[in-house]
Amino acid sequence: MSKLLIVGTVAFDAIETPFGKTDKILGGAGTYIGLAASQFGINSNIVSVVGGDFPEDYLEMLQDKNIETTGIEIVKEGKTFFWSGKYHNDLNSRDTLETQLNVLAEFNPIVPEDYKDAEVVMLGNLHPSVQMSVIEQMSTKPKLIVLDTMNFWMDNTLEDLLEVISKVDVITINDEEARQLSNEYSLVKAAQKIHEMGPKYVVIKKGEHGALLFNDENVFFAPALPLEDVYDPTGAGDTFAGGFVGYLSQTKDFSFENMKNAIIHGSNLASFCVEKFGTERMENLTKKEVYTRLQQFKELTQFDIELS
Amino acid sequence: MSKLLIVGTVAFDAIETPFGKTDKILGGAGTYIGLAASQFGINSNIVSVVGGDFPEDYLEMLQDKNIETTGIEIVKEGKTFFWSGKYHNDLNSRDTLETQLNVLAEFNPIVPEDYKDAEVVMLGNLHPSVQMSVIEQMSTKPKLIVLDTMNFWMDNTLEDLLEVISKVDVITINDEEARQLSNEYSLVKAAQKIHEMGPKYVVIKKGEHGALLFNDENVFFAPALPLEDVYDPTGAGDTFAGGFVGYLSQTKDFSFENMKNAIIHGSNLASFCVEKFGTERMENLTKKEVYTRLQQFKELTQFDIELS
Repeated sequence: MSKLLIVGTVAFDAIETPFGKTDKILGGAGTYIGLAASQFGINSNIVSVVGGDFPEDYLEMLQDKNIETTGIEIVKEGKTFFWSGKYHNDLNSRDTLETQLNVLAEFNPIVPEDYKDAEVVMLGNLHPSVQMSVIEQMSTKPKLIVLDTMNFWMDNTLEDLLEVISKVDVITINDEEARQLSNEYSLVKAAQKIHEMGPKYVVIKKGEHGALLFNDENVFFAPALPLEDVYDPTGAGDTFAGGFVGYLSQTKDFSFENMKNAIIHGSNLASFCVEKFGTERMENLTKKEVYTRLQQFKELTQFDIELS
Repeated sequence: MSKLLIVGTVAFDAIETPFGKTDKILGGAGTYIGLAASQFGINSNIVSVVGGDFPEDYLEMLQDKNIETTGIEIVKEGKTFFWSGKYHNDLNSRDTLETQLNVLAEFNPIVPEDYKDAEVVMLGNLHPSVQMSVIEQMSTKPKLIVLDTMNFWMDNTLEDLLEVISKVDVITINDEEARQLSNEYSLVKAAQKIHEMGPKYVVIKKGEHGALLFNDENVFFAPALPLEDVYDPTGAGDTFAGGFVGYLSQTKDFSFENMKNAIIHGSNLASFCVEKFGTERMENLTKKEVYTRLQQFKELTQFDIELS
């Protein structure tokens, strides 16, 4: 069975949407990626850092889902990274109310010895030099390195970001960020330019409008499932990425054809994530629910035009 | 072979986009619908009105494509409807620079005798009382009536609009208009409410983000084909509708399953429409081009997850 190494924040979030607000709850890219990937019965480990205030219960919940937490450093005298945000009425945009970097400010990722040969590495959204450090610690060249990033790093650490982008196989990025990074409005042209920066595959996330997968000659599109109610978009992009790498780790097939399936699995899991606040829905998701919704995805997208 | 009756504007447009501008060229919903539907080798006729300034060449071009123009009234002493608009840089929004209703102001649609038994009726975006008049002139109940409309009629003639909506089988409407009409933000809920107003099928057009097809229990999604260059979005929605009704007229199968295919054909044709200014691309489209791009649509959307 493949090993999946995840690097990403494990954090506290406080979220406000038009449908309610939460106190400090479990959050972070690493957490969402891990929870989504855990659906695929693989071995995974999260490289992250938390403070002495981080509840043991949360770590146990992850371990119960077969996510190893030996990569999560606990800085006893420090405090866990905290983010709070408020979503606008359409849920497509949000304001950050508060960011406390805390222990994340001096995060020095340490890859556990038994994951230095992981076949798949998922670099969650973090400082590009942290992402690079993880790549450099691998003892065996991973079969697949997937990188997620955001506009903040393009604005502030572009040189570091371009260096790590040049080392990865897949980049996941949202549409506005793809335009910013490439200076192209057309997403087809943006993907071509980003492809030339290194990644063989470019995944452009469009939120409620789905996701596109490009390589140098093909393109595939997965819609987001139309939902009656969306309560909280937090973590949807990370859940998507976690489903994507989880499925690829399970199947060990890194072809474009199989990445199509991985994109569908990622979209499928993301459709659950947004149905409740924080990680609640992902913590309690059953195999049957996942399967039923995959059938809905098929009905949503598959048609029967004969082309002889 | 089915007969398709189209009602819609046949007009002059002057268009400005970031990529160029045109003089007065051929436009109008009826024109775009007719050109798209003509791809399916059916009998069609456009009910419309033009002025004495409308070039005979344009009518001949339509006739050459097997689109009957006996429904297009020519008011010799009048002038043809004229619209001019300027698109913003992202092509997703536009300003109307000028609208001259001209002969459209007193348009009294007359359905040609030999189309009063048409199996399929496409009511292009027009005053709801014009749309209603066409329905009332039919001698035989059509197998399928499709209605397109826009926010202008919701703002100004809502009562008339709701009456015609209650008489049709399919409504096509964009996402913002669906929200306005239903007072629901979620498109799933919006479609349910619009469904309750009468139409068995609700098509929500999302422009570059594709289109959704709903009936009371199913949903299907067709993406827009990601394009390197979009020059002019004018007519894309009408081309989509024309492909939709053209395919349904050809196949005479009005099931949800076949409507999925119709939505794909509509999206496919719309992807050509935007590649050149005005009707140019649609006038010169070959069967081979259409077929090749349908294959691209399959590659774009079809995946292979086994669900036993």
